[in-house]
Amino acid sequence: MSNTFQDVEGGICAPKGFKAAGVEARIRKPKKDLALIVSEPPASVAAVFTTNQVAAAPIQVCRAQLQQHRTCSAIFVNSGNANACTGARGLDDAWEIVHYTAAALHVPRSQVLLASTGVIGQFLPMDNIRQGIYAAAACLARSAQASTDAAEAIMTTDTFPKQVAVRFMLGSHEVHIGAIAKGSGMIAPNMATMLAFLTTDAAISPSVLQHALSAATRCSFNRISVDGDCSTNDAVFLLSNGLAGNALIEDVHSADYSTFFATLQAVMIRLAKMIVKDGEGATKLIEIHISGAHDEDEAERAARSIANSLLVKTAFHGADANWGRIMAALGYSGIRFSPEKVELWLDDLAILKPNFHIALDEAKAKAVLSKPEVVLHVHLHQGDASVTFWTCDLSAKYVEINGSYRS
Amino acid sequence: MSNTFQDVEGGICAPKGFKAAGVEARIRKPKKDLALIVSEPPASVAAVFTTNQVAAAPIQVCRAQLQQHRTCSAIFVNSGNANACTGARGLDDAWEIVHYTAAALHVPRSQVLLASTGVIGQFLPMDNIRQGIYAAAACLARSAQASTDAAEAIMTTDTFPKQVAVRFMLGSHEVHIGAIAKGSGMIAPNMATMLAFLTTDAAISPSVLQHALSAATRCSFNRISVDGDCSTNDAVFLLSNGLAGNALIEDVHSADYSTFFATLQAVMIRLAKMIVKDGEGATKLIEIHISGAHDEDEAERAARSIANSLLVKTAFHGADANWGRIMAALGYSGIRFSPEKVELWLDDLAILKPNFHIALDEAKAKAVLSKPEVVLHVHLHQGDASVTFWTCDLSAKYVEINGSYRS
Repeated sequence: MSNTFQDVEGGICAPKGFKAAGVEARIRKPKKDLALIVSEPPASVAAVFTTNQVAAAPIQVCRAQLQQHRTCSAIFVNSGNANACTGARGLDDAWEIVHYTAAALHVPRSQVLLASTGVIGQFLPMDNIRQGIYAAAACLARSAQASTDAAEAIMTTDTFPKQVAVRFMLGSHEVHIGAIAKGSGMIAPNMATMLAFLTTDAAISPSVLQHALSAATRCSFNRISVDGDCSTNDAVFLLSNGLAGNALIEDVHSADYSTFFATLQAVMIRLAKMIVKDGEGATKLIEIHISGAHDEDEAERAARSIANSLLVKTAFHGADANWGRIMAALGYSGIRFSPEKVELWLDDLAILKPNFHIALDEAKAKAVLSKPEVVLHVHLHQGDASVTFWTCDLSAKYVEINGSYRS
Repeated sequence: MSNTFQDVEGGICAPKGFKAAGVEARIRKPKKDLALIVSEPPASVAAVFTTNQVAAAPIQVCRAQLQQHRTCSAIFVNSGNANACTGARGLDDAWEIVHYTAAALHVPRSQVLLASTGVIGQFLPMDNIRQGIYAAAACLARSAQASTDAAEAIMTTDTFPKQVAVRFMLGSHEVHIGAIAKGSGMIAPNMATMLAFLTTDAAISPSVLQHALSAATRCSFNRISVDGDCSTNDAVFLLSNGLAGNALIEDVHSADYSTFFATLQAVMIRLAKMIVKDGEGATKLIEIHISGAHDEDEAERAARSIANSLLVKTAFHGADANWGRIMAALGYSGIRFSPEKVELWLDDLAILKPNFHIALDEAKAKAVLSKPEVVLHVHLHQGDASVTFWTCDLSAKYVEINGSYRS
């Protein structure tokens, strides 16, 4: 097994057989707002959706489609409008998008999935969308630019497009994974308003593909938090079309699976970190490393409790080593621990040692906290479990962005 | 039974037998920061403490004291320093405060309780505190000014002192309840950094007193949220010294208990609303009324989920009727409900009717949301349970206050 890989250009178009497009359909604002991602031949598909009970129409349609078929030729995506809380008409609109897309691309309706992001509770401008689909179909291409166009089309309050592509070997076959994603507010563990689309030319069976995506999501997109809110529209899709020609991966215990999974997870963690870095109003990326927890679940709860604490997030924003807020967040996380055993570091700088021995050097801590990326290490000294979690600081800019999002 | 009562002057000194003082002990900043509350004769005492596992030293000392005795002559309170995460030395300091206070007031050590609020992880300036205790003991008085001094001394980032006093009748006896409290950040359901001290001259048995305080806390201080954080130092105390001369309340099913409880609860809800109104950076008070829930627990979870959503709070701040965020918060609250049955109102203005029928009039909604107090009604149409919950909006000022709290 080897998990070495190299970055390559091309985003979601880096793997063989994938084309993309991103166009301006005037859904809400003058920007690219409609994307298509197409695989030829049809790809196996895995997906993970929001846990929010208020699931947007596109989520409902995807669930229905995937119950019938686990292959996919095309994914439609729009930004500017979430098509959530839109009732029967919203659901009709989502199905109509499936039909338009299938017609424009000459593929069966059963092979089309879709995703939407944006404002909740407004109906989609269907005329603009239909025109946009045909326009996007007309300019589909396999190029780095096409991937970038798609990455831009799915952005809402994101400040930069998010894409990754890597190349790695499975036996003697060169394999690629490409990806685009969008954040950037409403990000919380268990997948808040984020969309991610991953493509690969690896040959992998549908059930193993789903296994890989679910496991990798748990350690990447489900371990980030911007504001603790969880959206109605979250979705992560992974398409694999087998064009790399590797021996089909059918066994999660095989060496090829290990290589594929390690690479997929690395790609997804990179996207997850980009999303946090671009959190609304964020000025720094905070990596929270919990170790010495009783079990992984408690380690994750501890990390999430710290990550979601507004008092912790604002202290990081002000470069204030107010570690008492970290202790308070641990204290209400509900995990089993002895406060006096806790050790804290910021990067390599010890802040708190056992028995509340305060090692804090304010000037040095200020220097560490003023960097754009900071690692907070928390050792609980209770057991062997650990997790890594990512969050961002909370700035006045977040309030400004979200106080007037719809205007 | 009657639950009519009148407001009176005097705060915690309104009930007979209570004195108070608030002085400047230079614990952290130049302001009043040390208070004493004294009852003569000794009072029965009930208390509710933080659920945070990281309990500050004064909380630990109070728990130990109350396990031995349910009467109290004096409560010491300081702001500026929480005496939390201070280990063995912090615990020694807390016990020393008990001893100083007992000595200064000539009461048994077993009759002294204490509370602290402020920065975590720093040792108390014990010399200043000892001097402050003697200074406060020297100016103890039963007056409106003394209550105000104490209310000011317990403030941290609060912008105004919080006190209430009422008079009501139990049979032919005039009875009083007085109270002071402090917020104002780190407020969350289940009692975040808030302290409240209630005094009454009612005669009531210790177990019934505790029953009343616990029940009233559930519907007041545990149904408010500023930022979702829960502190290491929260405490609510209720002292009753019996000087009103009413027949001892020993039965929670009696008419006198009902009158007492209704009044106590009204007083505590008023304090709770003051705390939310004075939430750090808050510009408006939001009352969330959930009805039609399956049960009270689900109603409360729904309310808390909405109250803690940063996206909801920032939308209220921007007077933006972004009701999709309310639906999203309901959706991840974990309660059982059908999204299409939900109805929403802002004050009397319908926003959403069943089956996602959008009734929103943006201009009218903006007018309602621009008021300093707004009621959000959410009808789930699932069952008969309802709750009322209070929160505030989230402003850039919150970030500013909490980014530099320690400086």
